[in-house]
Amino acid sequence: MSESFDAVDVIITKRGRGELSDGQIDWVIDAYTRGAVADEQMSSLAMAILLNGMNRREISRWTNAMINSGERMDFSSLSRPTADKHSTGGVGDKITLPLAPLVAACGVAVPQLSGRGLGHTGGTLDKLEAIPGWQAAMSNEQMMRQLEDVGAVICAAGDGLAPADKKLYALRDVTGTVEAIPLIASSIMSKKIAEGTGALVLDVKVGSGAFMKNVEDARELARTMVDLGTDAGVRTVAMLTNMQVPLGLTAGNALEVRESVEVLAGGGPEDVVELTLALAREMLAAAGRGDVDPADALEDGRAMDAWKAMIRAQGGDPDATLPVARETHEVLAPADGVLTELDALKVGVAAWRLGAGRARKEDPVQAGAGVEMHAKPGATVRAGEKLLTLHTDTPERFERALESLEGSFTIAPEGSRPDLLPLVIEKIS
Amino acid sequence: MSESFDAVDVIITKRGRGELSDGQIDWVIDAYTRGAVADEQMSSLAMAILLNGMNRREISRWTNAMINSGERMDFSSLSRPTADKHSTGGVGDKITLPLAPLVAACGVAVPQLSGRGLGHTGGTLDKLEAIPGWQAAMSNEQMMRQLEDVGAVICAAGDGLAPADKKLYALRDVTGTVEAIPLIASSIMSKKIAEGTGALVLDVKVGSGAFMKNVEDARELARTMVDLGTDAGVRTVAMLTNMQVPLGLTAGNALEVRESVEVLAGGGPEDVVELTLALAREMLAAAGRGDVDPADALEDGRAMDAWKAMIRAQGGDPDATLPVARETHEVLAPADGVLTELDALKVGVAAWRLGAGRARKEDPVQAGAGVEMHAKPGATVRAGEKLLTLHTDTPERFERALESLEGSFTIAPEGSRPDLLPLVIEKIS
Repeated sequence: MSESFDAVDVIITKRGRGELSDGQIDWVIDAYTRGAVADEQMSSLAMAILLNGMNRREISRWTNAMINSGERMDFSSLSRPTADKHSTGGVGDKITLPLAPLVAACGVAVPQLSGRGLGHTGGTLDKLEAIPGWQAAMSNEQMMRQLEDVGAVICAAGDGLAPADKKLYALRDVTGTVEAIPLIASSIMSKKIAEGTGALVLDVKVGSGAFMKNVEDARELARTMVDLGTDAGVRTVAMLTNMQVPLGLTAGNALEVRESVEVLAGGGPEDVVELTLALAREMLAAAGRGDVDPADALEDGRAMDAWKAMIRAQGGDPDATLPVARETHEVLAPADGVLTELDALKVGVAAWRLGAGRARKEDPVQAGAGVEMHAKPGATVRAGEKLLTLHTDTPERFERALESLEGSFTIAPEGSRPDLLPLVIEKIS
Repeated sequence: MSESFDAVDVIITKRGRGELSDGQIDWVIDAYTRGAVADEQMSSLAMAILLNGMNRREISRWTNAMINSGERMDFSSLSRPTADKHSTGGVGDKITLPLAPLVAACGVAVPQLSGRGLGHTGGTLDKLEAIPGWQAAMSNEQMMRQLEDVGAVICAAGDGLAPADKKLYALRDVTGTVEAIPLIASSIMSKKIAEGTGALVLDVKVGSGAFMKNVEDARELARTMVDLGTDAGVRTVAMLTNMQVPLGLTAGNALEVRESVEVLAGGGPEDVVELTLALAREMLAAAGRGDVDPADALEDGRAMDAWKAMIRAQGGDPDATLPVARETHEVLAPADGVLTELDALKVGVAAWRLGAGRARKEDPVQAGAGVEMHAKPGATVRAGEKLLTLHTDTPERFERALESLEGSFTIAPEGSRPDLLPLVIEKIS
């Protein structure tokens, strides 16, 4: 960085709805990472960005500056193309688990760097850590070898990728500046681009259980991220998908692994199968293998084989018995009728409170905790039938979980139909 | 503080253009003063306030919360009414020096807590410290006694008044959040209200040399401050006054003391005399002595007597020779004509660079440094005549001072007239 700027000038530019220059953006990200721009200056700038926005050039430069703050991975020496998927997070969203081995089984390598959960959405690593022996940490060399041998890796992102984003995200979390589309988009995309994937499919969730509560905001976020990926030479598409209702019939770590294995075995809930196949098709197409039908790999067991190889390669036993929570509590249907609503956020908060998630980064999670759903919207239910089963090792948690489930479902007279968005709402490319 | 809030919730409320509740405001100011709300949270909130505003109730509550963070002075036991003046700061603004003793000579006590200068506007204490022996620091008891005996005190504000404002102002200074009218108004008024004056006259400067560059912003700031004073039971009026051109013929510490003494002796530049009398009349009226004409006290020497008594009471020698800078440099008129412009900001920056002001709080100032003006807009000048004399102890400063003076004046053909705002633009009460 040869040119130097003044933090207050940068803030005042954005405060006045001005455009930040490339030099200002490069400098402020680098200086913040080095500690030469203080937290209180960056948070004030983040608020100005949240309220006054950034244009495509600014967001693209901001993303690049965050990428340049750290190392960049490169999978171009692999013998097959790469494709990655990123979900903006939802309740019961275990799609990465069946999807990565499925796409690998179709000939495209999946280098999936994932995170742990915070709040009501589960983390992919937390889910896989429910499998006895499975390890999230890998060196770049191990990752490369596994991608060549097995075709899929799901592991923890190293500290070297986009350290500016790590610092900025922690700051935004405590300063009311998370909900800025330019900052959300650049945060996600800086990590995904630094990761070096050739193609990327973004699953942008919409609804109560998602970060984006309405289609318009989700569309803007998706469009911004697709533009960023495209500008960086990554073939990127985004799907807006429904998160008004939890995905599948489980929310919780071991519970979701079990359901993912059911899908890989050719069964599992319809919505999980549908979304897994839809995202697999997009990943294959983006990686230049649009001719391959992933449904075949699911049916003939190749996806399951890839799953087992992937789990074993990271120390896990794919055939081991999964942890089960010590205590359960059943929620029964209070009336006959049609289940028309099952709120994703409320179910997610219940699973979190039962021990499946964490409130602070350093908290442990319970492998067996979570919520099992016995019916999804559209189903006919009878009074007294099981609707939900709550799982936890610590039964004192039932009370607060039940509180969060108040008003979480609606049973309407027979003949009613749920009024929900489709599972796949639209595609942006 | 019994109720507790979450800093992120408070930030998100204001970010979304919501109104902060009384409880939120009381909590956030108290928690920030205690360190329970972090700098990076307060700066993000300050930016949200700057961009989304606060209503009258919020500003009033915010001001009160800052007052309540410290001690409050009380002059109600004095035998005479009190009135104070506050200027938002300008170049050559020495008005406090003749004004305080003049108003005291008319029977109204003036408890003037002042500050030191930062940037291009001079500080009242820096000016008075040019007088040999004069001391700015006083205890509350000394202040009380001097108000009773002499009628006027100009001294440094103690650390006990509105400590929340002190902390917040330092934060705003480095986070691009100074220019928020609700925050400027509450910063000024929290100190003035805590100071315990019964009446207050605000001199809100407008023009290049002032903080407010246009009449609309100045009017909004003045109106906000008058409302705050009124809500707090302080009889408050504001005058919008011209700061396109420096006040008087000097900008610099000892130079301005000399000019102030000329005014007290019945002479001095017309604009300084006019503004001193206009503000004195407002202070007397606000303190219930609207029947007294301050011009009499200036003419008959009572104001000068009060000045000498005030300076002596604080250890100064009013008859001592004032410091003179070691070096001078003259700027000559380049052409014949009428001086139509003399930019306040440029002259202020030159005086600052010559050593009259400081860039950081801990910097020293030169007593003798500054800019002396030999003509003001409207005057006819001849090529080669002295226009400005620059004074400094450190001649290496002339170069940068001269740079800042580039384009500072305009000489137009004879018969031209300056296009300037009147000295007193309007009154808001």
